[in-house]
Amino acid sequence: MEFTIDSPIDMHLHLREGAMMERVTPLTSNDFAAAIIMPNLVPPVDNLDRLIAYREQIVAAKGEDVFEPLMMLFFRNYSKAELLAAREHIFGIKLYPAGATTNSEAGVKALDEVEDTFALMEELGIPLMIHGETHGFVMDREKEFLASYAHLAEKFPKLKITMEHITTRDAVELLDRYENLYATVTLHHLIITLNDVAGGLLNPHLFCKPIAKRPEDREALLQAALMAHPKLMFGSDSAPHPISKKECCGCAAGLFTAPVCLPTLVELFEAHGQLENLQSFVSGNAQRIHGFAAPRKQVKLEKIGMDVPARYGDVVPYRAGEHLPWTVTQRSSN
Amino acid sequence: MEFTIDSPIDMHLHLREGAMMERVTPLTSNDFAAAIIMPNLVPPVDNLDRLIAYREQIVAAKGEDVFEPLMMLFFRNYSKAELLAAREHIFGIKLYPAGATTNSEAGVKALDEVEDTFALMEELGIPLMIHGETHGFVMDREKEFLASYAHLAEKFPKLKITMEHITTRDAVELLDRYENLYATVTLHHLIITLNDVAGGLLNPHLFCKPIAKRPEDREALLQAALMAHPKLMFGSDSAPHPISKKECCGCAAGLFTAPVCLPTLVELFEAHGQLENLQSFVSGNAQRIHGFAAPRKQVKLEKIGMDVPARYGDVVPYRAGEHLPWTVTQRSSN
Repeated sequence: MEFTIDSPIDMHLHLREGAMMERVTPLTSNDFAAAIIMPNLVPPVDNLDRLIAYREQIVAAKGEDVFEPLMMLFFRNYSKAELLAAREHIFGIKLYPAGATTNSEAGVKALDEVEDTFALMEELGIPLMIHGETHGFVMDREKEFLASYAHLAEKFPKLKITMEHITTRDAVELLDRYENLYATVTLHHLIITLNDVAGGLLNPHLFCKPIAKRPEDREALLQAALMAHPKLMFGSDSAPHPISKKECCGCAAGLFTAPVCLPTLVELFEAHGQLENLQSFVSGNAQRIHGFAAPRKQVKLEKIGMDVPARYGDVVPYRAGEHLPWTVTQRSSN
Repeated sequence: MEFTIDSPIDMHLHLREGAMMERVTPLTSNDFAAAIIMPNLVPPVDNLDRLIAYREQIVAAKGEDVFEPLMMLFFRNYSKAELLAAREHIFGIKLYPAGATTNSEAGVKALDEVEDTFALMEELGIPLMIHGETHGFVMDREKEFLASYAHLAEKFPKLKITMEHITTRDAVELLDRYENLYATVTLHHLIITLNDVAGGLLNPHLFCKPIAKRPEDREALLQAALMAHPKLMFGSDSAPHPISKKECCGCAAGLFTAPVCLPTLVELFEAHGQLENLQSFVSGNAQRIHGFAAPRKQVKLEKIGMDVPARYGDVVPYRAGEHLPWTVTQRSSN
């Protein structure tokens, strides 16, 4: 039994820098035709020189793979001249509320103080991607941020806004209320709830931001993904941390899902009898929403099984040590 | 500045066995006049011989301290003969739903199958303490169990039932609805919420069962404690785990609070201007509710500061490395 995906795209990916980037980049560039590369490095990718240099490093790390890194600027107040110069090099700009997640200290403190930049982005047609969480109670942070999404979507009706890695039923429902509001969802938020993180023993490898929510939230996300909701895109948020930052006191947030994304998505959509919608969820929706063409690449999976390694270097992947039914057996760009 | 507590009692304590018990017992027996000793050992303390032997080990470990271990049987179906023989040796019987927490595999699978023992306990005046959680979504487990508390309180109106380590506003509210329903609350559930466990970096040392809940739950628990709600008793649920079981993949549940219980309680009640209620919360309520007299012991605290050690052996205590304003300076039994 086999299944082929045309030009899968990961709309939310962390590659880091240096040796970690060199290790993890091929694990995405093998399987995906393109990925949005998150800019929350230290220091952040908030100028064109750094962005171009970072892109060159990624291109070197991917080797011969057919793979397009879609580059993002880290949100700050940008001038029109800066945005005009950057426009052809970037896919969008990623906004982090200050302190909301890993390496977001340089993020935005108050949304109403940066509206000039939103207006410029709207004028120039540059998409805005947002990590939408307040600093409130951890289970409420996304829900509390939804009013800000609604406000921005109304005030800047031509600005394309993506709610990144949504985790709640409320966010799914908001998608249908504003024409210019879109969302990505991760693999793991289609599968886990807070029970998997803290319901038995505490599992630091399933700790992420936004944190996994309630069963009814997971169900709403899964149903939206399985039907390939036209405003929802796959974005893994795969984020490698060395094991020393996960199994410790003060564990970092993030799951490293890159090596198992496609096999797990096929398994999940097959289990729910919705394999025919996976192509849109993992590629078509993103290209239609953002009006771009990903590099041509066919990825074939077969139901011959794979064993997920316990570690990639010092990084523990999602589903480490598990046996998966599906595995990628062929990539072709013809 | 000083503050004296008469015969403080810890109504919920884990001492383990062997070397761990020898290490942690004095950290409670120094400061407390009595404590309820939890029976979820491996194998559980579910017969009189084991209970008497365990008590002797604790008495040896406490040394010269004035300290009364109040022994508990692990709930199973007991015969009347067993309960009659045990009655004078035990303070109560602790019921765990099977699999709800550490070493609870031998617990009860269905409450309605053990009602004969509830009836015997009611007849013989033996209190029932319950770890009240379902196997549902982790944030709902206590709330979902409340109907079982209500059912038991109604069906066995003379059975004294304690909801152990309550963590929700709903449980506080249930206290006032059934005359024979009581509760203990830990130190840490008066202070932390899920945000402290998983809102920033993940903190395995604050992971416990029941898991810390929402801010409004913490507030309800704190207000009930500060007013020394007449049906609420202090029970630390102090539970030592070696650091290798906390900073790892698959971290065990439990905080080791024993060494800082009294200093932190005084700090907390002082901060809220309710020091005059601490005596009832930490001693008076328990003696009145259960009609017993704890050994006479005065514990004096002074506001001269203490530094909490980073570890006691291989156990990391609550507030490790912090400087606390209050410290215990004198224990006398005259």
